[in-house]
Amino acid sequence: MILNQHPSGRHFLQIPGPSPVPDRILRAISLPTIDHRGPEFGVLGLKLLAGLQQVFQTRHPVIIYPASGTGAWEAALVNTLSAGDAVLMFETGHFASLWQKLALRLGLQPEFIGDSGLDASGIPLSWRRGVQADQIEARLRADSAHRIKAVCVVHNETSTGVTSDIAAVRRAIDAAGHPALLMVDTISGLARADYRHDDWGVDVTVSGSQKGLMLPPGISFNAVSPKALEAAKTATLPRAFWAWDEILAMNQTGYWPYTPSTNLLYGLAEALDMLLTQGLPQVFARHQRWAEGVRCAVRAWGLQIQCADAAVYSPVLTGVVLPAGIDADRVRKTIHERFDLSLGTGLGRVRGRMFRIGHLGDCNDLTLLAALAGCEMGLQLSGVPLAGSGVQAAMAHFASHPAAATIPV
Amino acid sequence: MILNQHPSGRHFLQIPGPSPVPDRILRAISLPTIDHRGPEFGVLGLKLLAGLQQVFQTRHPVIIYPASGTGAWEAALVNTLSAGDAVLMFETGHFASLWQKLALRLGLQPEFIGDSGLDASGIPLSWRRGVQADQIEARLRADSAHRIKAVCVVHNETSTGVTSDIAAVRRAIDAAGHPALLMVDTISGLARADYRHDDWGVDVTVSGSQKGLMLPPGISFNAVSPKALEAAKTATLPRAFWAWDEILAMNQTGYWPYTPSTNLLYGLAEALDMLLTQGLPQVFARHQRWAEGVRCAVRAWGLQIQCADAAVYSPVLTGVVLPAGIDADRVRKTIHERFDLSLGTGLGRVRGRMFRIGHLGDCNDLTLLAALAGCEMGLQLSGVPLAGSGVQAAMAHFASHPAAATIPV
Amino acid sequence: MILNQHPSGRHFLQIPGPSPVPDRILRAISLPTIDHRGPEFGVLGLKLLAGLQQVFQTRHPVIIYPASGTGAWEAALVNTLSAGDAVLMFETGHFASLWQKLALRLGLQPEFIGDSGLDASGIPLSWRRGVQADQIEARLRADSAHRIKAVCVVHNETSTGVTSDIAAVRRAIDAAGHPALLMVDTISGLARADYRHDDWGVDVTVSGSQKGLMLPPGISFNAVSPKALEAAKTATLPRAFWAWDEILAMNQTGYWPYTPSTNLLYGLAEALDMLLTQGLPQVFARHQRWAEGVRCAVRAWGLQIQCADAAVYSPVLTGVVLPAGIDADRVRKTIHERFDLSLGTGLGRVRGRMFRIGHLGDCNDLTLLAALAGCEMGLQLSGVPLAGSGVQAAMAHFASHPAAATIPV
Amino acid sequence: MILNQHPSGRHFLQIPGPSPVPDRILRAISLPTIDHRGPEFGVLGLKLLAGLQQVFQTRHPVIIYPASGTGAWEAALVNTLSAGDAVLMFETGHFASLWQKLALRLGLQPEFIGDSGLDASGIPLSWRRGVQADQIEARLRADSAHRIKAVCVVHNETSTGVTSDIAAVRRAIDAAGHPALLMVDTISGLARADYRHDDWGVDVTVSGSQKGLMLPPGISFNAVSPKALEAAKTATLPRAFWAWDEILAMNQTGYWPYTPSTNLLYGLAEALDMLLTQGLPQVFARHQRWAEGVRCAVRAWGLQIQCADAAVYSPVLTGVVLPAGIDADRVRKTIHERFDLSLGTGLGRVRGRMFRIGHLGDCNDLTLLAALAGCEMGLQLSGVPLAGSGVQAAMAHFASHPAAATIPV
Repeated sequence: MILNQHPSGRHFLQIPGPSPVPDRILRAISLPTIDHRGPEFGVLGLKLLAGLQQVFQTRHPVIIYPASGTGAWEAALVNTLSAGDAVLMFETGHFASLWQKLALRLGLQPEFIGDSGLDASGIPLSWRRGVQADQIEARLRADSAHRIKAVCVVHNETSTGVTSDIAAVRRAIDAAGHPALLMVDTISGLARADYRHDDWGVDVTVSGSQKGLMLPPGISFNAVSPKALEAAKTATLPRAFWAWDEILAMNQTGYWPYTPSTNLLYGLAEALDMLLTQGLPQVFARHQRWAEGVRCAVRAWGLQIQCADAAVYSPVLTGVVLPAGIDADRVRKTIHERFDLSLGTGLGRVRGRMFRIGHLGDCNDLTLLAALAGCEMGLQLSGVPLAGSGVQAAMAHFASHPAAATIPV
Repeated sequence: MILNQHPSGRHFLQIPGPSPVPDRILRAISLPTIDHRGPEFGVLGLKLLAGLQQVFQTRHPVIIYPASGTGAWEAALVNTLSAGDAVLMFETGHFASLWQKLALRLGLQPEFIGDSGLDASGIPLSWRRGVQADQIEARLRADSAHRIKAVCVVHNETSTGVTSDIAAVRRAIDAAGHPALLMVDTISGLARADYRHDDWGVDVTVSGSQKGLMLPPGISFNAVSPKALEAAKTATLPRAFWAWDEILAMNQTGYWPYTPSTNLLYGLAEALDMLLTQGLPQVFARHQRWAEGVRCAVRAWGLQIQCADAAVYSPVLTGVVLPAGIDADRVRKTIHERFDLSLGTGLGRVRGRMFRIGHLGDCNDLTLLAALAGCEMGLQLSGVPLAGSGVQAAMAHFASHPAAATIPV
Repeated sequence: MILNQHPSGRHFLQIPGPSPVPDRILRAISLPTIDHRGPEFGVLGLKLLAGLQQVFQTRHPVIIYPASGTGAWEAALVNTLSAGDAVLMFETGHFASLWQKLALRLGLQPEFIGDSGLDASGIPLSWRRGVQADQIEARLRADSAHRIKAVCVVHNETSTGVTSDIAAVRRAIDAAGHPALLMVDTISGLARADYRHDDWGVDVTVSGSQKGLMLPPGISFNAVSPKALEAAKTATLPRAFWAWDEILAMNQTGYWPYTPSTNLLYGLAEALDMLLTQGLPQVFARHQRWAEGVRCAVRAWGLQIQCADAAVYSPVLTGVVLPAGIDADRVRKTIHERFDLSLGTGLGRVRGRMFRIGHLGDCNDLTLLAALAGCEMGLQLSGVPLAGSGVQAAMAHFASHPAAATIPV
Repeated sequence: MILNQHPSGRHFLQIPGPSPVPDRILRAISLPTIDHRGPEFGVLGLKLLAGLQQVFQTRHPVIIYPASGTGAWEAALVNTLSAGDAVLMFETGHFASLWQKLALRLGLQPEFIGDSGLDASGIPLSWRRGVQADQIEARLRADSAHRIKAVCVVHNETSTGVTSDIAAVRRAIDAAGHPALLMVDTISGLARADYRHDDWGVDVTVSGSQKGLMLPPGISFNAVSPKALEAAKTATLPRAFWAWDEILAMNQTGYWPYTPSTNLLYGLAEALDMLLTQGLPQVFARHQRWAEGVRCAVRAWGLQIQCADAAVYSPVLTGVVLPAGIDADRVRKTIHERFDLSLGTGLGRVRGRMFRIGHLGDCNDLTLLAALAGCEMGLQLSGVPLAGSGVQAAMAHFASHPAAATIPV
């Protein structure tokens, strides 16, 4: 029985996704599965699609896939591009790299830019700052033949804790007078960090369920602009499961061309109800406050926050760089075994150098303090010299910065 | 609140999938989401993969996708084929047609064979019988250049209630001495109808969660033979999300290259435990008995069973053909509104001519009798002349044919 | 693991309580337990107490006990009576007998009246009709010394399927000019059969959670009139746990003097929301319609309905008397083993002579038809000669008597 | 909808009961209610009764009441005593006082002993130490007429955090050669603090579900010695619902004379499985470790632990005495509003002087550290001068005292 795997007490899931799922949502996804062709389903479907538009801040369609987030990346590319198309991608971290790798596999020609240098800690400079819009603008200006068909960037880099300025990317593209589509991955940013599909002129936004939406993994999204829909008409990469056209046609009445992920959609209905009842601005503010509390802790420990630019700190996770010579994964293992706390590992080019603390999903001040306590004890047990108590610093922050009054959700 | 959609009493979900999900599984999928990179997850992953091999009756790998069944069709094709490849498909019904359409979208050249004629009721002959292996053999023999790279058939046609003889298809291919891969969709057959990936020489088996496995929709499967894996090495259709290679590599330790559908996997663990504790032969026998009870009812009503060949009656659903002039969907609507019972609609070429009764998933004698009672009342209310009481016939069958003693699951 | 006890498919729980609990309520009771002294709890408590008043149709207080229904019987007596007090009770069936036995144990002097004779089937006449108000009136008139302190009757006799006319009992007491308190057990009637605590002049109404309120067993109720509260001031039976005074004082702010049954109260909140959203008259009508369908079946079988007076048929259960020589419990055992259907046993003086079909809690037409099918098959397998098909008769009834349109709950 | 009451993130329920309920148990109690007279139920009943004997460490019967803990107190008294009987009770705190009050209401003559003085903080001395066995011995020796029929003590005083030495009380009674029954309330101690019904010669042990057994409130227990059963034969207090005789008779086959609390019993089955799989000694050690961690925090704050005798520190809760002039309930209110943490209030004679931290039920190191962080911030925000950081002290304790390796439950 799978249930037996869980040790005494509640596990602290402080990875940057999947995030802790609220009880309300867990109960909702356990309701009996209904007929995805029946009349109740259409009502549900229309409600979900309308609610998602509010969360993506768009008047344009949002597609829901019964597939995890990686599939939504693939969907964005295969619906809009053709074999051999050049795409400009910016190396913000591991997930940007994975998206580039996926583009390669699909037969596209990704061009991957960023800062190639390393900082004093041996960490790629690109992995500590967000997208540099000026580099994008320069590259697009140089592409006078308009070979580049899309600019693909990650909004909230889950591997680093950096949230790029997407509006600036849009301005860069416009300044260059370039027709490339703008595609943005906000898998871990949506619904916790302010994200504006329409205002920022994004053509395809990619997201998933298991982060800010507080759902288990399993469904993912494409928000699509009219320009992206237009591009889909001539794009020739083969596509069937991911094809927008059939889904959009069926979505008119709240249905899908193939079987949707019914029970996760129940959870989505709950999540939308919770989010929209409270209000997105309130949710965003809540995570900004928590993020600053966590950063207070990291500073007090005398450790480095991976994000080197305060303007682009992520509200949903914080990367903690460990001193050279310390294996961050051994620290994580100690913390997991001793304190039943899961932290995010260092991915790709920062493997072993850092760990990540998630502060998204369903949490509160005490949950985060518990997580910081687990980190602090684990760092000490691992022999990492600390300048002071991060827990104390975070407590001081939370105590002196009360949360705005909120409608309970 | 989504919960409010459910009317008084329990809905009777007798469509041929999604099937009724047992309470044990619904509770399991509502457990807290855990870290898909943590140590507990690997243990779970290995257990699931081993259990699935038993269900597919294979010693070869089974891939789990965090995507619904249509995705697993796409995966089977893009992993093994190249643009322009010819594939031979047999028109057993709507889902065979959809697979063919999907192949077309992916740039393959499906050749779709079957009986083109209509029977006296105006229903395609191909939709009332299973795959005709001799037609496949003949076609393959004619393909001396071996342009055909794969033979794709549906094991249990969810749109008709016909379960084809896959072993015969294998024999046909072998008799023709043809190297084509054999790909089989058993989305609705797996775990309820006997299915033998290895014994029957299937190269790629496609299946899903929401039918015989008694789970909500959202995960799907490819069981792959060594020959299929070999073909994947040279196949050139673009693929990333669906690519077997990375998944198989990660599966060695029980993990996945991208986020799996954690909570549905909890449900899969329960489902495997239930199925394997009871034993597949016992489960298969149970559904054969129920299917015969339902057919007794249809015969008593004086209506036609869509499957015209008793050798290939489906154990998991029964198609009921209505007299000419009766709109089957109006009958279904009456039944749904009056008796809170969902039946499957007639799909594609039989739209409006028939409805489908599911007898898969979590059910029992009384549930089926309730469903038959709903059908009988709805048929009468719709003015369909009935020869007798199907409910009485099914009761007589169930009463006189006790189920074999089983370990309760 | 307790879960493993449940066999394949959903059990049909057609006993007259505990009744089938809706999924909404099962999910609600699985929410995390909260502090019963915290601020949220008081809000919940006040809401529950107000909602219960609507269900009991009273402006006076309703007490909630964290105890099952038998405890609420005891509470009614110990709060209002003193050792040696005479109480007049009417033998409507087994539960009336149990209440009398409980009164004896508490040191009261119950006088138990009713028809002492047997009918042709050997069943006590009292067990086939409701309370005979004229007998009560006669007895009270004879009690000129007013030794009788309370008249205790059962509203809906769960052991027989007879729903007595409580208003008539009130009129009888008044006609006799007798000051006795009127105490009524409507454990199985409340929220499914019309029940009016105030209009009918009831002093103490006793009820429980596991019948019409669609909850699991574990909480129970006393609705108390001002006259009952007055009696409590001088009553001397020892009481502590059951004492109204402390509970009523704490209930002013929504709390209890000792720990309430928090999670069942969550379920009660759901149940009240479901009931009051739909409206009690709609709920009552629903069960009247179902009850008549079940009675149609019994008549078609050629068996006797235990309730011999159509004016007092119970809307929530039907007693079915079997021919002499048939052991009703063997029939029930066959039905349970073969069809996973639970029926109520014959209790007390009708043990082995009859069984009971519950039609309360969360059900619908098809559930009841399934239950009737199970009965019909089981009766036939047990060699009980049947005049015709009860299932067909009930189908005819349900098909020709559509339910009134209702707000789905 | 009750669900909407829960604010963002998981509430921290650190009151000394109801304790946090594990997800496994919450899921179990949400399973469909079954027939309490059916064959599956008897199997469950026998399993529960056997499991409880292990938890109470007794070979004698354990009674399960479908009622909360206060009812089990009443049951212990009414089954064994007669009106006017003298009982000796020891004032260990609020719950001892409530039991005394309950005895008074039932017509018994409780004699309430203890230290009448106050300590320097104005707190009753009796509320800071456990039962003083020598006082009991002296009183019993003086009772040469054996008017005292029972000695009633509280094992783990939930209002103070003191766990009395029950074996010493037994020795005192024996030393006095007195025949009084020994009755012990271990509502909050059972299953977390070592408790030995047989070895300690207890006659009636009273307990409940919502503390160490990790269940919601609603069921409670009496473990009864042969001597207690003998006493029940001549005891004359009126009793019906609480009467042992009928329950014990029915329990022989796993059933109850009236409706048991089915869904809470599902939870009990899970709880027993969890406890007995891990082993009681492991569970006891776990809570001793946590308790010491919490006490380290209180000492670091420079506040007083209410329990003044280290030999009887409670493993399941710690009372924290605040400096004179501080309203402890205002501190609690601040903590609740700011940090969504529930603490226990000061009850009865210590109202406003202290609060209580629960460390029972389903918890772990980080949960407790979170609770301590909430306390520390709330104390500071309330202007309570602290000598140092309790969180740091507890972290130091937990980090330097690893838990013994345990089978995960």
